[in-house]
Amino acid sequence: MHDWIFVYTGFSPKEEGLREALCTLGNGYFATRGAGPEAEADDIHYPGTYLAGGYNRLTTKIAGKEIENEDLVNIPNWLPLNFRIKGEDWFSLKNVEILTYRQELNLTKGILSRLVKFQDNKQRKFTLINQRFVHMGNPHLAAIKLNLISENWSGEIEVCSALDGKVINAGVERYKSLSSRHLEPLEASPVEGGSMLLKVQTNQSHIRIAQCASTHVYSGNQRLEPNFHFIEEKGYIAKNFTLELEKQVQISIEKIMALYTSRDHAISECGLEAVKAVRRAGSYLELLQSHFQAWSNLWRRFEIDINITRPDENGYKERVMNLYIFHLLQTTSPHTLHLDAGVPSRGWHGEAYRGHIFWDELFIFPTLNYRLPEITRSLLMYRYRRLPEARYAAEAEGFKGAMYPWQSGSNGREESQRIHLNPKSERWIPDNSRLQRHVNSAIAYNIWRYYQVTDDMEFLNFYGAEMFLEIARFWGSCAVYNPNSDRFEISEIMGPDEYHDSFPGSDSPGLKNNAYTNVMAVWVLKKALILLDLLAEDRRIELCREIGLEQKEIDRWKKIIKKMRIIFHGDGIISQFEGYDQLEEFDWEGYRKKYGDIQRLDRILEAEGDTPNRYKVSKQADVLMLFYLFPAERLEEIFTELDYPLRRIPYPKMSSII
Amino acid sequence: MHDWIFVYTGFSPKEEGLREALCTLGNGYFATRGAGPEAEADDIHYPGTYLAGGYNRLTTKIAGKEIENEDLVNIPNWLPLNFRIKGEDWFSLKNVEILTYRQELNLTKGILSRLVKFQDNKQRKFTLINQRFVHMGNPHLAAIKLNLISENWSGEIEVCSALDGKVINAGVERYKSLSSRHLEPLEASPVEGGSMLLKVQTNQSHIRIAQCASTHVYSGNQRLEPNFHFIEEKGYIAKNFTLELEKQVQISIEKIMALYTSRDHAISECGLEAVKAVRRAGSYLELLQSHFQAWSNLWRRFEIDINITRPDENGYKERVMNLYIFHLLQTTSPHTLHLDAGVPSRGWHGEAYRGHIFWDELFIFPTLNYRLPEITRSLLMYRYRRLPEARYAAEAEGFKGAMYPWQSGSNGREESQRIHLNPKSERWIPDNSRLQRHVNSAIAYNIWRYYQVTDDMEFLNFYGAEMFLEIARFWGSCAVYNPNSDRFEISEIMGPDEYHDSFPGSDSPGLKNNAYTNVMAVWVLKKALILLDLLAEDRRIELCREIGLEQKEIDRWKKIIKKMRIIFHGDGIISQFEGYDQLEEFDWEGYRKKYGDIQRLDRILEAEGDTPNRYKVSKQADVLMLFYLFPAERLEEIFTELDYPLRRIPYPKMSSII
Repeated sequence: MHDWIFVYTGFSPKEEGLREALCTLGNGYFATRGAGPEAEADDIHYPGTYLAGGYNRLTTKIAGKEIENEDLVNIPNWLPLNFRIKGEDWFSLKNVEILTYRQELNLTKGILSRLVKFQDNKQRKFTLINQRFVHMGNPHLAAIKLNLISENWSGEIEVCSALDGKVINAGVERYKSLSSRHLEPLEASPVEGGSMLLKVQTNQSHIRIAQCASTHVYSGNQRLEPNFHFIEEKGYIAKNFTLELEKQVQISIEKIMALYTSRDHAISECGLEAVKAVRRAGSYLELLQSHFQAWSNLWRRFEIDINITRPDENGYKERVMNLYIFHLLQTTSPHTLHLDAGVPSRGWHGEAYRGHIFWDELFIFPTLNYRLPEITRSLLMYRYRRLPEARYAAEAEGFKGAMYPWQSGSNGREESQRIHLNPKSERWIPDNSRLQRHVNSAIAYNIWRYYQVTDDMEFLNFYGAEMFLEIARFWGSCAVYNPNSDRFEISEIMGPDEYHDSFPGSDSPGLKNNAYTNVMAVWVLKKALILLDLLAEDRRIELCREIGLEQKEIDRWKKIIKKMRIIFHGDGIISQFEGYDQLEEFDWEGYRKKYGDIQRLDRILEAEGDTPNRYKVSKQADVLMLFYLFPAERLEEIFTELDYPLRRIPYPKMSSII
Repeated sequence: MHDWIFVYTGFSPKEEGLREALCTLGNGYFATRGAGPEAEADDIHYPGTYLAGGYNRLTTKIAGKEIENEDLVNIPNWLPLNFRIKGEDWFSLKNVEILTYRQELNLTKGILSRLVKFQDNKQRKFTLINQRFVHMGNPHLAAIKLNLISENWSGEIEVCSALDGKVINAGVERYKSLSSRHLEPLEASPVEGGSMLLKVQTNQSHIRIAQCASTHVYSGNQRLEPNFHFIEEKGYIAKNFTLELEKQVQISIEKIMALYTSRDHAISECGLEAVKAVRRAGSYLELLQSHFQAWSNLWRRFEIDINITRPDENGYKERVMNLYIFHLLQTTSPHTLHLDAGVPSRGWHGEAYRGHIFWDELFIFPTLNYRLPEITRSLLMYRYRRLPEARYAAEAEGFKGAMYPWQSGSNGREESQRIHLNPKSERWIPDNSRLQRHVNSAIAYNIWRYYQVTDDMEFLNFYGAEMFLEIARFWGSCAVYNPNSDRFEISEIMGPDEYHDSFPGSDSPGLKNNAYTNVMAVWVLKKALILLDLLAEDRRIELCREIGLEQKEIDRWKKIIKKMRIIFHGDGIISQFEGYDQLEEFDWEGYRKKYGDIQRLDRILEAEGDTPNRYKVSKQADVLMLFYLFPAERLEEIFTELDYPLRRIPYPKMSSII
């Protein structure tokens, strides 16, 4: 394949946060943001490292309330690798004059590199080259390199290579008033061969995390053995040494890091395994080569190679699409198979959304199903393991079957907050997002599509069918028969459009008869009937007995399939929910003029004492999602059985979508 | 199916250890020995509870040596549930006159019960009924019940229900001089609803273990609410309460226990999950019913129902065979699928062999492959996760590919001791058992048979082929060409027969050209060639590149297949190893007379300053294993290609084997 490379030129403090997110390197097991190895968390930089599914819960007392949040934990920063001219300040982009700055993210090879030429306040000129990778072959390894050349100066420099477990969760501005100290120090000590070991644990979920790092110095091919000493603090360890830097002679410093946690399989103890892994890792170059090999295998399966380039675009669209794939593979990869992790909406790239699992897999699985369906299976197993919790949630609200949470983290309870702070108004407002029960249909849909692509009957028999039927039971018990309309109705829910979480003037949260929700519920029930037929009789009987599914419940499903209520506008267009046509038109022009960026209209309106609930506005596709998920023929079948007309609008052609 | 029940009548202190092992209840996740709820570890009883794959390493200084052992840890005892007449001694079998004693292990339902009628030294008569189960549906739950009737006395009794984390590993007599304290206390505290929580962790592998238990009392259907108090000690918690016992009125005490560890999936924190699980568990009776349901599903797949009963045997053989299946399912079950555990030679039923994984899966998988092959797959994944360690072991001894250890535990390093103590002679003697490299062929054989039964190409592509080829490479590099004989030879190994670990008079450990090892190596290499053809070209190229397998290595395999050396006796019978025919005949008659039980002939001879190496004796099938693993036709193919004659002896008929 091509070498897909993203190049940033010039250092831009304002852009740095975004760059760090887009330059995150990961392997499905952990991910590290693209902050420089000299960077500390401040107003510009945020070096963060995250474990797939590495959560911890903390309680904050704030404005008289106790708020518990489950966060994706920022684990110790393994990057620190910096230098200074002896007796002077450590290198920092702030303190030097930058002459050249070029950062490259090589998607093909999975490496991030940076070249900085700078001059300090004594006119000493240096060239600094950094390179790093998070190993795609061995998920426990990563490495970072620092090459340094002085252009016009010789003298002693001091180098510091550290593992920093003093980090906190501070990546999201609006979470800053919440508790953020998730790590407790356990051990910081030198180990065999001049390496160092740092062990910490999360203070509530008690995940033990061990990082071991070696740091070696080379001048050309020659390994140098400078004297070194360790700085050991609680939750922090550094190896410091002094080098002679000769004018125009490049010094190379290579740091190899191994990361293990108490949740890993096939370990005796995470610290012991981390030390062993560094000892056996081989050289930076050897690791780099096996890393390339692993990426090359992945790209062979995943590269998007469509000829849609217009000469003036210079392959832009393909590059962007492969950037999506690249970040997807950092979040979920073949290493996901051995974990108990879901796929979070923002990757393991930072702290936004707290690494929670929403419904985004719906958009991701189509890509995985045809390339490495084992990953889909593994991510569906994340759901299966949380089926008991989803059953409990359904029961607690008086429903049957399983009700998966809108936000899922460690153990599958609902992680959505019941109230949240609007940073614009500084008011606590109710958060009804948990009413997005449609996440359940998404899970069922994903099970079905995975089965269709793979014919994996073993999964269906042992895991998929049970989840699917329990979700069907949930919808079956959610839908309430209304004798006035002779239709089944679903109330107190939210559709995918998060600008509408209750009807204006209504006391109760949620909406009634959201079309997306209702149609998906019907689809789930229809497929549940087919699924029951697909199972071997033995297994069907066994499973129905296990979950207590009886014929009368199935008979009810058959009625719902024919009599679910869908609301239409006068012109035959499907209405988003009951009463949508009574909402006001929104003054788009006026608000665009007033606020410029109106992406978070919800916050703008709330700060004005208003709410998007009153208007015909939409945060994202809602009823339209149906046309994303199904060909029109399938939708027509559903509507025909419901005895509703479906206005058929020709689909736009592919070229105009792209 | 029938209700298969094993009944023990009468209490037999000498037999109790064996009974406790045979009455172990487990569910693949954990297992608890059949000791009574009043029993403490002493010279008669040994209440032990073990997690599947719950290992910890300890070092012992003994006779000037530092010995490190990895043990299967005896985790806290959740059974304790006892009573006493107020102010007197706690009930103990030692202090009463036993009138009736009947213990029943119900295989069909997975319950252990015991009825004891006894009279104390004041002529007070009681009937005590215990029942327990380890839940087969929810692997984290277990429960135990105590029913008590006083025949001729009324008065106050005191009840104690405890979780005891002060236990040590003391189940094996000859390990007793070794370090045995594996647990550190973390927390012992009352929790919501009158339940209690105990948390401990293993002191080296840092597995956190949480047990939560509720204890409820009933008189008939009526729940009693006696006053209670907790006894909280380091690593121990008990709930004590006082009850009025009325003459001839039965009191029922039900204890429900939830067990979680830090290694579990889908948890936030193990203590929190254990408390939650007890809160949501439902009643003893509800749990019992869902437990029956789970066993009934298992038996539908696993029951051995062959009509081989002779009237005089009363179904004995079927009962025994289903007892084997029962214990197999307690060691490895559908719950194994979510663990990283192998299948140990003695189950999770006690501390013998330290719960290590040998080659026994070779004998177990045929049963699993046709009933729940997913379990086989999961157990093979235990091996796959330890492939890097096996590769390292091969490299460390100068071989290619992967060399799996003879004894495998937590992280797949070789857990066999290099020396061990002969309890008969009290001498430390070298232990060469690690030279049983044939464990590698067993793993390859298991992969192949699993594939043959299931056609699971996904497993083969992603895991099985890699392990298989790496094992083939190991044999390819083990076999050394001898130009004198124009044959390849394998030295310094042991066959399955552990009575022969070196040749008499030789300085070097191990044997040369063990027929079983050599033939299995040839079989592995032959199948490796077929396997390479089975893989899709893309995957084959990718995999060969990943493991560095080149054509010249494959060419060497082709030579070995034609020229491996097998030793024959003069009469054409395959010799166990090179030089076997020079060994002395053993004086069976004399030794039987002298020692009676000569099962551990190795220890007897070593104590005499002799060794079984000198004799034609065998601990277990060695060359004969070939005829267990293959039909004669397959063996003939192998020997024909090797240009050796194979004397064909007709197989015994099935009826005479059984």
